[in-house]
Amino acid sequence: MSETSRYSANTVVIIGLGLIGGSLARALRSSGFSQRFVGYGHRAPSLERGVELGVIDDFTLDIDEAVGAADIIVICTPTLTAASLLEEILPRVTASKRSIAVTDAASVKGNLHRKALALGGGSMPPQLVLGHPIAGSEHSGVDASREDLYRDHRVILTPEAGNDAEAVALIRAMWESTGAQVIDMSVEQHDRVLAATSHLPHVLAYALVDALARSEHGDDIFRYAAGGFRDFTRIASSDPVMWRDISLANKSALLSALDDFTAHLAQLREAIASEDAQQLENTFSAAKQARDAFAQDLAQRTGSTKP
Amino acid sequence: MSETSRYSANTVVIIGLGLIGGSLARALRSSGFSQRFVGYGHRAPSLERGVELGVIDDFTLDIDEAVGAADIIVICTPTLTAASLLEEILPRVTASKRSIAVTDAASVKGNLHRKALALGGGSMPPQLVLGHPIAGSEHSGVDASREDLYRDHRVILTPEAGNDAEAVALIRAMWESTGAQVIDMSVEQHDRVLAATSHLPHVLAYALVDALARSEHGDDIFRYAAGGFRDFTRIASSDPVMWRDISLANKSALLSALDDFTAHLAQLREAIASEDAQQLENTFSAAKQARDAFAQDLAQRTGSTKP
Repeated sequence: MSETSRYSANTVVIIGLGLIGGSLARALRSSGFSQRFVGYGHRAPSLERGVELGVIDDFTLDIDEAVGAADIIVICTPTLTAASLLEEILPRVTASKRSIAVTDAASVKGNLHRKALALGGGSMPPQLVLGHPIAGSEHSGVDASREDLYRDHRVILTPEAGNDAEAVALIRAMWESTGAQVIDMSVEQHDRVLAATSHLPHVLAYALVDALARSEHGDDIFRYAAGGFRDFTRIASSDPVMWRDISLANKSALLSALDDFTAHLAQLREAIASEDAQQLENTFSAAKQARDAFAQDLAQRTGSTKP
Repeated sequence: MSETSRYSANTVVIIGLGLIGGSLARALRSSGFSQRFVGYGHRAPSLERGVELGVIDDFTLDIDEAVGAADIIVICTPTLTAASLLEEILPRVTASKRSIAVTDAASVKGNLHRKALALGGGSMPPQLVLGHPIAGSEHSGVDASREDLYRDHRVILTPEAGNDAEAVALIRAMWESTGAQVIDMSVEQHDRVLAATSHLPHVLAYALVDALARSEHGDDIFRYAAGGFRDFTRIASSDPVMWRDISLANKSALLSALDDFTAHLAQLREAIASEDAQQLENTFSAAKQARDAFAQDLAQRTGSTKP
């Protein structure tokens, strides 16, 4: 950031203190990017726990106090809650007349973008920079937070022409200080990419496990499943409420990805039914090639040794 | 086995020496179940490598020599090759008038069962006990073989009324000596269970990766995929020819499982399209519960700590 920025990074208010928000606070404290961390939420217990763990310095259950304390506000709640929180936060930020940068970590950007435009009277509130860290864990809650959660992971920002360039620079610098690689894309591109690589796979995994569980021989079936099935269905152990909300928030891109997949699967079904060995081999080989290339690329960028 | 069994476990002939056959030979040598291991195949290099590694003692490219040396024959080739090998092996076993037990490790049992019945003039050849170890690795070839591959894994046998009880007992004892848990089921049940938990997931993973790779924004999409996508698509890095053959060999059960899944997915699509939050949450919650229970059960039976 230039030294003449109207923004400060001193106090970060985390709204929704769980794995994502807690890990961000830990990382920013460790990097020295910010000095003070305040939690805000509707219920005290996880916030008290955050203070106990040293993740945040203080917390409040009062939204006016939270906005009043903030230089940066990061909304780390599930995606539908994030949309309704914008209604509470943005008018207060505007009324404060202070340069407070607002960002979020939700999995869908389109619904927040629509809400922001509505709140901004058709234009983007300049201080609101939407974002999404591509990181997570099978664990959740502030107890699972770690200062290295974002290291070598990607964070997508969706800055707009209407955004204040200094607010964008501040949020970018914040994520870079966690060790993440920050990438810009459009709201539409973000939601399309995430639908394909994350939201659709979750729906498929949930659908498969539920279909098997409800089938006549359900108990039997799981008894003989092994490691490949465990990996394939791991994402079906994700939080159902979070994924319900993501499915609804990204409905349009998700349905489009789902329909593409279903059409593709119908072709593959036809190849099996007609015993078209060549088409099966071609499809499976092309998929293997693409998946091997992806896994190699992911290993390089994260330093992971997983196949 | 009773001491009066007509069968001996002394010499095991492995047909198709790769990960599966090599690991079986290593395990049986280590447990002392058998004393001599002979490889048979059409090409010398992997067999020579097997001797070099001490996995087998000797090999032959001559099927008459192979059957002549065998007390137990284990067919460890891919599933369609296994069916055609039965044609070469079973007549020679019958002609030898010796008590040679024959088994296999292929992923589908129905096609081998039909072939065996045809070769047996409508009844099961008494010495042929079909089986399937539920174990594998992302690595293949005899170099990847390990003596502990089957430890704490399940091996499914599909013994029939027409089978010689002593042959069944011998093959069961063989797998038990590797540390595996041996379970009996019918051919039809085996193929239905494996279609649901293994063959369908592979087809879904291949279909998804191929659909994304062919989509307009394919490169982009993979660039932003992360760990969840890596786990979900790991099985799409499996051998395309092996899975082409499995899809064809288990066509009927696979199509049935695929159609069940597709119907289920269509319901879920409708719930997303109509924004039926309750149905989405119910489906996702039921799936999470079933998947968590499965993962816990798998962890208990294999001692794995993977989620």
